[in-house]
Amino acid sequence: MKANRLIYLPLGGAGEIGMNAYVYGYGPEDKERLILVDLGVAFPDMDTTPGVDLIMPDISWLEARKDRLEAIFITHAHEDHIGAVAHFWSRFKCPVYARRFTATIGKLKFDEHGHPKDAITVVEPRPDVVKAGPFDVQFVPVAHSVPESSALIIDTEAGRIVHSGDFKLDEDPLVGEAWQPDVFKAIAQERPVKALMCDSTNVFSLHAGRSEATLRDPLRELISAQRGMVVATTFASNVARLKTLAEAAQAAGRTICLLGRAMRRMVSAAEASGVLTGFPRTVSPEEAQDVPRGDLMLIVTGSQGERRAASAQLSRGKYLGLSMKEGDTFLFSSKTIPGNERGVISIMNAFSEMGVNIVDDSGGLYHVSGHANRPDLETVHRVLDPEMVIPMHGEHRHLREHARIAMAAGRVSDVVTNGMMIDLTGKKPDVVEYIEAGRTYLDGSVMIGARDGVVRDRIRMVLNGHVMVTLLLDESDSLLGDAWVEVKGLAEKGRTGAVLGETLEADLTEYLDGAGKKVLKDDSKLDEAVRRVVRQICMEEIGKKPEVTVVVSRLTEG
Amino acid sequence: MKANRLIYLPLGGAGEIGMNAYVYGYGPEDKERLILVDLGVAFPDMDTTPGVDLIMPDISWLEARKDRLEAIFITHAHEDHIGAVAHFWSRFKCPVYARRFTATIGKLKFDEHGHPKDAITVVEPRPDVVKAGPFDVQFVPVAHSVPESSALIIDTEAGRIVHSGDFKLDEDPLVGEAWQPDVFKAIAQERPVKALMCDSTNVFSLHAGRSEATLRDPLRELISAQRGMVVATTFASNVARLKTLAEAAQAAGRTICLLGRAMRRMVSAAEASGVLTGFPRTVSPEEAQDVPRGDLMLIVTGSQGERRAASAQLSRGKYLGLSMKEGDTFLFSSKTIPGNERGVISIMNAFSEMGVNIVDDSGGLYHVSGHANRPDLETVHRVLDPEMVIPMHGEHRHLREHARIAMAAGRVSDVVTNGMMIDLTGKKPDVVEYIEAGRTYLDGSVMIGARDGVVRDRIRMVLNGHVMVTLLLDESDSLLGDAWVEVKGLAEKGRTGAVLGETLEADLTEYLDGAGKKVLKDDSKLDEAVRRVVRQICMEEIGKKPEVTVVVSRLTEG
Repeated sequence: MKANRLIYLPLGGAGEIGMNAYVYGYGPEDKERLILVDLGVAFPDMDTTPGVDLIMPDISWLEARKDRLEAIFITHAHEDHIGAVAHFWSRFKCPVYARRFTATIGKLKFDEHGHPKDAITVVEPRPDVVKAGPFDVQFVPVAHSVPESSALIIDTEAGRIVHSGDFKLDEDPLVGEAWQPDVFKAIAQERPVKALMCDSTNVFSLHAGRSEATLRDPLRELISAQRGMVVATTFASNVARLKTLAEAAQAAGRTICLLGRAMRRMVSAAEASGVLTGFPRTVSPEEAQDVPRGDLMLIVTGSQGERRAASAQLSRGKYLGLSMKEGDTFLFSSKTIPGNERGVISIMNAFSEMGVNIVDDSGGLYHVSGHANRPDLETVHRVLDPEMVIPMHGEHRHLREHARIAMAAGRVSDVVTNGMMIDLTGKKPDVVEYIEAGRTYLDGSVMIGARDGVVRDRIRMVLNGHVMVTLLLDESDSLLGDAWVEVKGLAEKGRTGAVLGETLEADLTEYLDGAGKKVLKDDSKLDEAVRRVVRQICMEEIGKKPEVTVVVSRLTEG
Repeated sequence: MKANRLIYLPLGGAGEIGMNAYVYGYGPEDKERLILVDLGVAFPDMDTTPGVDLIMPDISWLEARKDRLEAIFITHAHEDHIGAVAHFWSRFKCPVYARRFTATIGKLKFDEHGHPKDAITVVEPRPDVVKAGPFDVQFVPVAHSVPESSALIIDTEAGRIVHSGDFKLDEDPLVGEAWQPDVFKAIAQERPVKALMCDSTNVFSLHAGRSEATLRDPLRELISAQRGMVVATTFASNVARLKTLAEAAQAAGRTICLLGRAMRRMVSAAEASGVLTGFPRTVSPEEAQDVPRGDLMLIVTGSQGERRAASAQLSRGKYLGLSMKEGDTFLFSSKTIPGNERGVISIMNAFSEMGVNIVDDSGGLYHVSGHANRPDLETVHRVLDPEMVIPMHGEHRHLREHARIAMAAGRVSDVVTNGMMIDLTGKKPDVVEYIEAGRTYLDGSVMIGARDGVVRDRIRMVLNGHVMVTLLLDESDSLLGDAWVEVKGLAEKGRTGAVLGETLEADLTEYLDGAGKKVLKDDSKLDEAVRRVVRQICMEEIGKKPEVTVVVSRLTEG
């Protein structure tokens, strides 16, 4: 009989910040019983994933082994951790465990997808234990930018793993549990930690992180100093921040209105699950219209410049009857996630044109991160003193830097990326297999593979434009009438001043009139020839080689 | 007779950082003689300008008045100031004035476009004066991140204007002229400054700028401490930085190789125009292959993550026989311009996967900006003491903030954006007209207007995919055969698992077989009906509404 082994296999999150999905297994080789920690999404961008709605991990490996999957554990309610669960759950139909607030959010999603809500089980934190096959799992409250974020203690016969989840060391997080070094010390004293899988997001931030509580006074001072309407945006799930903003508004005698579905949903889920109490009374957008501007504060979605969120809508004009005016103030109580700069800056400029005062976090007063900075990571390494540190939740550069600082402190560490199956049984992480771990896209209502060519075709069309050629051939393979050309996404006229579509039609017709039967009677030769001619003419006329689609209709006898 | 007036009309650059183009005019209303200061480009992005090669100001207003245009003055050789001159010069055929280095770069461009090189006249700096109609123009050397950057003194009967160009206050810029407050004091003492048109790029940077010279020691220390190959990237035109990097490499006993056409072109233009002397000897990429890695330093293009530049090429593998390996160091001696983060980060991660150490400017040691920060702007306002400060070279938010700080100091200022014609004759800027000032795109080899719908069509195709329908109708308006559907950039199969193209063909054929003659015989009704059916089916099958192109071929008798 083969010996049992303890394996770790990230399917997402170890190579990007987003779409977290980490598999753990314990048992004999290829018969390990499995659990999945988190199943999140990543967000598309125009450069690499235009038109895509959501990016999710490729879970085919896990799906093929679903009989071995005991359960899914969700550490917290951020989309990059919970966002794909409802999309994929029907492929597994296994139990899902989460703390109350996370479960509340999860159940809303399950409901929308028509899944049974009781598939998600609410778990109380440590010392409660969830048994899932050979795994004993405990949820350990940690501070983060969403309520009830948790680290997991994952115990098997082979040892104790601490999976950090997303966390920061915050002694006064305002909502949720504070960082308590004693709790972590106790975890390591109770049983030595074999491996720490650890959040790497802020490994390049060299100063110790600041507490959520440090924002309270600056936000109060800022808001009470304004005369016009104040609008603040932050991440919808940052319930502590929403509360701080709302309380600052209340202290300044302002009426509060929440704009954006995601934000109202978060606040009501937080109230329903008991993590949020005493949130100031809010009014609806309709009621807000009757409040004098100087007495009003809007808290809105769209801190990342998302085109459909409330911030962007307000930057384009009236939204739900409300609009910004000269003398109003717009506060970004948030940071711009790298890659979102263009959208955010475009909103700032639109507000600037309206005469709105923009306040952002460039002074460091109005936002703190939800992730542990480098010195905080080092603290956690010291307190848990694990046999190995495996960085996760980061791009390759974050994982590498995180491993580097762990090794610099004399610890065993390695860079483990999506698709690398690691055997943790021994004294150091041991790569045992490489799994094909790609990405899946939700595109409209269907899933497409990242390598299906769909997005590649889109990118080619957007960069090069698209020419469609229709040819009608008679029974003897002669062109009937002229070639028919439609052009989309290309200059109307070429460098000679002639209309491009007409030039193409004339030149193609001339070419086809002279083309041999060999070409004309063979669809694929004809397609290739037409494509070549079109691209050559376009290159001459407009200096671009477009995508070309050729449709050949052949009249058949009878 | 109408009185003469002095006007200012930005056609680009006052509303974005890029495509600078500022018109000044003096004379009777609508008969002002004109000069143009700078004619630059901006760079496209996937979000708003996919597939476009370059963005340029819409110069139709100026073209319609070309008989009134006396000359074009180029302040410096950055693409956002000089990049469009060669593209548009044949529409004006007027004299172009620039200092030697700028002219050298300009002449290379003119040569490529087949324009006469002697259209560009080399100007010596103040006290030399260029007379252009009613304008007396002097070039005043300023420090910036390219050699021989200049402010302009623009004198007319109506007063003295100082057009700052791009500048910083650098007392030791290493290459080029240092900031000399006495020179600016003398300018204001000689004749009071009516208006200062002033660079706004760094108005949000609250600390005084640092000198290029402060980088010398940190770069030397960094480079001499490395063991593997060192590769550094910076802006190709930052000749001072190239020299500092090369000298640091030389001091560390390394052989230097420049990679990237733009960089080699800048260095040779700088040497040819006499602004750069003593640049260490460089070797070709072929020669570099024979140099031991630890003795080699590459200085490469692509600090902004541009896909075709040397940095990106090296991040993808071998480039010109050279490649990065574990233990090498890659230095970004640059900052990432907002909007370019995705490309830069993707290069960093690719290097990280190779085991290359990445050093960037997050510590503030290896790069300084070429623009004046807020305290420096305030200094220049004080020294020149102009009647009015007109912010330029900035997005709306920069212009607004710059005007705000000027007004806070008791000065007359206003936000003037592209297309606003300002009369400067009086004591304050006075808007006299709004000009249609849009953008033109170089797309392949032709120019298209930003509002031509070409780019809009591309964006629709990339977001929604493209369905092409071909219908063949006989003489009696009946469908011959089936509808023919081609799909590009959409999921192959719908939610039922059926092939989308086949579903569309079957459903369209069925629809058309039942459609009335009224629809079938009318091309536009047919087009509309087919479009509607396709979008409805796609919505059901894949949850997206694609772009649809319908081609109707009608067989006619005879």
